[in-house]
Amino acid sequence: MGGAGFTLGQLAAALKTTVDGDATRVVTGVASLEAAGPEHVAFVADGRYRRAALASRAGAFLAADDVHDLPAPVIRCREPRLMLIELLHLFHPPPTAVPGVSAAARVASDARVHPTAAIGALAVVGAGAVIGPGVHVHPLVSVGPAAEIGEDSILHPGVVVGDGVRVGRRVIVHAGAVLGADGFGYTWDGAAHRKIPQVGTVIIEDDVEIGANTTIDRGTLGPTLVRRGVKIDNLVMVAHNVEIGEDTVIAAQTGISGSCRIGRGVVLGGQVGVADHITIGDGAVVNAQSGVTSDVPAGAKFAGSYARPVVEHHRIWVAEARLPEVLHRLRALERKLEELTKGE
Amino acid sequence: MGGAGFTLGQLAAALKTTVDGDATRVVTGVASLEAAGPEHVAFVADGRYRRAALASRAGAFLAADDVHDLPAPVIRCREPRLMLIELLHLFHPPPTAVPGVSAAARVASDARVHPTAAIGALAVVGAGAVIGPGVHVHPLVSVGPAAEIGEDSILHPGVVVGDGVRVGRRVIVHAGAVLGADGFGYTWDGAAHRKIPQVGTVIIEDDVEIGANTTIDRGTLGPTLVRRGVKIDNLVMVAHNVEIGEDTVIAAQTGISGSCRIGRGVVLGGQVGVADHITIGDGAVVNAQSGVTSDVPAGAKFAGSYARPVVEHHRIWVAEARLPEVLHRLRALERKLEELTKGE
Amino acid sequence: MGGAGFTLGQLAAALKTTVDGDATRVVTGVASLEAAGPEHVAFVADGRYRRAALASRAGAFLAADDVHDLPAPVIRCREPRLMLIELLHLFHPPPTAVPGVSAAARVASDARVHPTAAIGALAVVGAGAVIGPGVHVHPLVSVGPAAEIGEDSILHPGVVVGDGVRVGRRVIVHAGAVLGADGFGYTWDGAAHRKIPQVGTVIIEDDVEIGANTTIDRGTLGPTLVRRGVKIDNLVMVAHNVEIGEDTVIAAQTGISGSCRIGRGVVLGGQVGVADHITIGDGAVVNAQSGVTSDVPAGAKFAGSYARPVVEHHRIWVAEARLPEVLHRLRALERKLEELTKGE
Repeated sequence: MGGAGFTLGQLAAALKTTVDGDATRVVTGVASLEAAGPEHVAFVADGRYRRAALASRAGAFLAADDVHDLPAPVIRCREPRLMLIELLHLFHPPPTAVPGVSAAARVASDARVHPTAAIGALAVVGAGAVIGPGVHVHPLVSVGPAAEIGEDSILHPGVVVGDGVRVGRRVIVHAGAVLGADGFGYTWDGAAHRKIPQVGTVIIEDDVEIGANTTIDRGTLGPTLVRRGVKIDNLVMVAHNVEIGEDTVIAAQTGISGSCRIGRGVVLGGQVGVADHITIGDGAVVNAQSGVTSDVPAGAKFAGSYARPVVEHHRIWVAEARLPEVLHRLRALERKLEELTKGE
Repeated sequence: MGGAGFTLGQLAAALKTTVDGDATRVVTGVASLEAAGPEHVAFVADGRYRRAALASRAGAFLAADDVHDLPAPVIRCREPRLMLIELLHLFHPPPTAVPGVSAAARVASDARVHPTAAIGALAVVGAGAVIGPGVHVHPLVSVGPAAEIGEDSILHPGVVVGDGVRVGRRVIVHAGAVLGADGFGYTWDGAAHRKIPQVGTVIIEDDVEIGANTTIDRGTLGPTLVRRGVKIDNLVMVAHNVEIGEDTVIAAQTGISGSCRIGRGVVLGGQVGVADHITIGDGAVVNAQSGVTSDVPAGAKFAGSYARPVVEHHRIWVAEARLPEVLHRLRALERKLEELTKGE
Repeated sequence: MGGAGFTLGQLAAALKTTVDGDATRVVTGVASLEAAGPEHVAFVADGRYRRAALASRAGAFLAADDVHDLPAPVIRCREPRLMLIELLHLFHPPPTAVPGVSAAARVASDARVHPTAAIGALAVVGAGAVIGPGVHVHPLVSVGPAAEIGEDSILHPGVVVGDGVRVGRRVIVHAGAVLGADGFGYTWDGAAHRKIPQVGTVIIEDDVEIGANTTIDRGTLGPTLVRRGVKIDNLVMVAHNVEIGEDTVIAAQTGISGSCRIGRGVVLGGQVGVADHITIGDGAVVNAQSGVTSDVPAGAKFAGSYARPVVEHHRIWVAEARLPEVLHRLRALERKLEELTKGE
């Protein structure tokens, strides 16, 4: 990857920084410390990776100011993770789709597609849908009737956007994700489960990213709401009427039940389950595989199923290992005491 | 939503009930108590929501007979949840697909599509498949060779129905669900895992609903069987040879391993795992995130991983929190007893 | 199924074995012991199924040499599971796709499709992609630009193969699986999560099978790597930079976080979660629903969340049930001891 080569000097200039060492050296790509060869620049996040860097065959490094004595020239930076992003964009400029509607797409006559948008082959855009400027609808995507896709958003192959769903700007939806399937709501009429029509919608605000095969159901009456900057991994389930606050991060295979309120800047680990109608406060962290069955205060760290504060959970987990021993010691005590009492 | 307006009197007449208050008031939609404005009718499930109703700006309420003194006219009803369904259908009549096969669909010449069925753009119907009356096959759906879809069923975009799979009447399959992928079966031949051909099928009976991106694998020799009225949420896994009894409800991200027998009227919470060859009796309830590794009797309530009766699980969960304390108290007892014995 | 009939003699000849009993009997299919009728041959894996075989109505059996006195003719075999595979192939020969590109597929002009490959209706093959000999691309599949699909592989409907992803030979990818969505990587810049470009790829080696709606993300810089013979069930999540060793088996709904190294011949049960950067040694077994938060040695058996050695986990699980009792006994001891001390 990254067929075009740059000198380290060119890279440093583009990144507005400096080089320690031979600025004329040419590199053709970015690689991990382990995989890098002399043609690569490798990334040293911080001093903990210095040992790996010393063993690396990389032709150059991208490293923070405080990582010294590396075995190849170094592009220096204050915030290596942010600069890595810039560096990757230099070698891998984001693909630009050719604007226009593929002849093999099926776009309803009354859908409004901005002339700068790209609609791929075998994509379907329903009646009254609105596709904004710079949007990229990949092949085999379904955008339902009256749905709206905001500026510069990307819908990867196989994405399904339901009727009337609204997607903001710069949103990335990965392959196979489903936005706006019916929420799971029934009432028993004495003989059968009767389906409660799910007539709400889904609203995805700006700068959200949604993982592959994730599902976000439409609200029963109002919207299921994913706020600005939320990042959701693959195979996540967001049920009807949920609201997820800004900049919250949700790892893979987590499930959020109906009508939950997830705060801002929350982190949910992978495979977490949240029961219905739960509130999770701003900035809370819930460890992977936890089951949240009561509200979590802002800033709290929870773990376990049913989830407790993480410190308490860990103490219990450690103590658990001694449970079989506890049973033995208890029996021993009881015997001793019995003997003592008998002796009296 | 619900652009057309109705007077409360019109609504009450349609619902065969009465209005307390001004029957000439016009409402244009249904909303939650929190979101409702004067143009909405809001739903008061029971007396527990009375406080929220008092604070609501709704122009009217749908409420049970025993909820009094609401701040706007009330459409009265015996069973508010069932009547809510009727009310929602008035404002949001289910979309009716235009019968016929899209010119952009690909239907095998020997498939039989009923003239009242609708086949959307870029849908594929395989050789010998049968599409019943009133069926709605959305865009980008694949119906495999020899599959059968019963009357009035709906296949949402991106659904895949495998070869020979049979879907009953009034079944709703949400986007991205896969019916009839191969079951997961191998045998080790000493050098490699050899695939056991999965030549069975999937049978979905009438009135089943299947969530987005859920997968139901075909049986090894016979069918994987989902009986009448079963409701399955998103991202659920049903493995080969499973049988699920009538009216059972399965929440999101639950997985049922091969050859399980799930009874009638069972409720499986979200993210439950059921080991292979397990039987769960009629009417049993398994809490979210449980891991079921032994049979569950009819009517039992189970929880935990490995699941136990829910009462026992809860007692343990409460006692667990005192485990670190138990260790301290045990040590204290041992010391005391040691001193006592020494003293003798 | 299996419309064509065979005599038991014909079957035994094809399987290079013998018949005990009437070799002229005709059977038309394979069925389970429970479902079989006189027209079926049923499979008796070993002596444990003898009782079920005695109750079966099957017209013939496929059974190991040491299962005696069955109520119908028996096709004898050393390794019944392996011979079942041969038998099933006789009745259900794997479907052979007609080579060629469907007129309704969209194949980029510079993609290279081998003349023996079959590309189904409404499939999309991107620029520069390579489709090998005998490959079967089903309808509604997206093969991204520069992706490569090796000889005799099968991509079922709705599969998405991302840009540049490489799939080996004889790989089976079930419906809705996504290979090569972006890994989940961000860095906080003080105001927002900034996306780290995921410029690596996915490499799937030969003889791998991937379940329906499973997702395998592309690496950040290098590949996510699934080695020869790995079998992955439905709805599994494999995160970026993971490497999975040969012949490893992963059950449904399991999630493997970023940069894990899973060894050869490992078995991960269903709904397992593996934290990031974990190493699981060759031949290890991790029970269903476990949460793996530390490295697992080769050959170890782990269970629980957080996972421990399975023997320890089971002892704790058994002891847990006595926790409420422990609290009572502890209190009783304390009282007794108090009285004793008081008495002095």
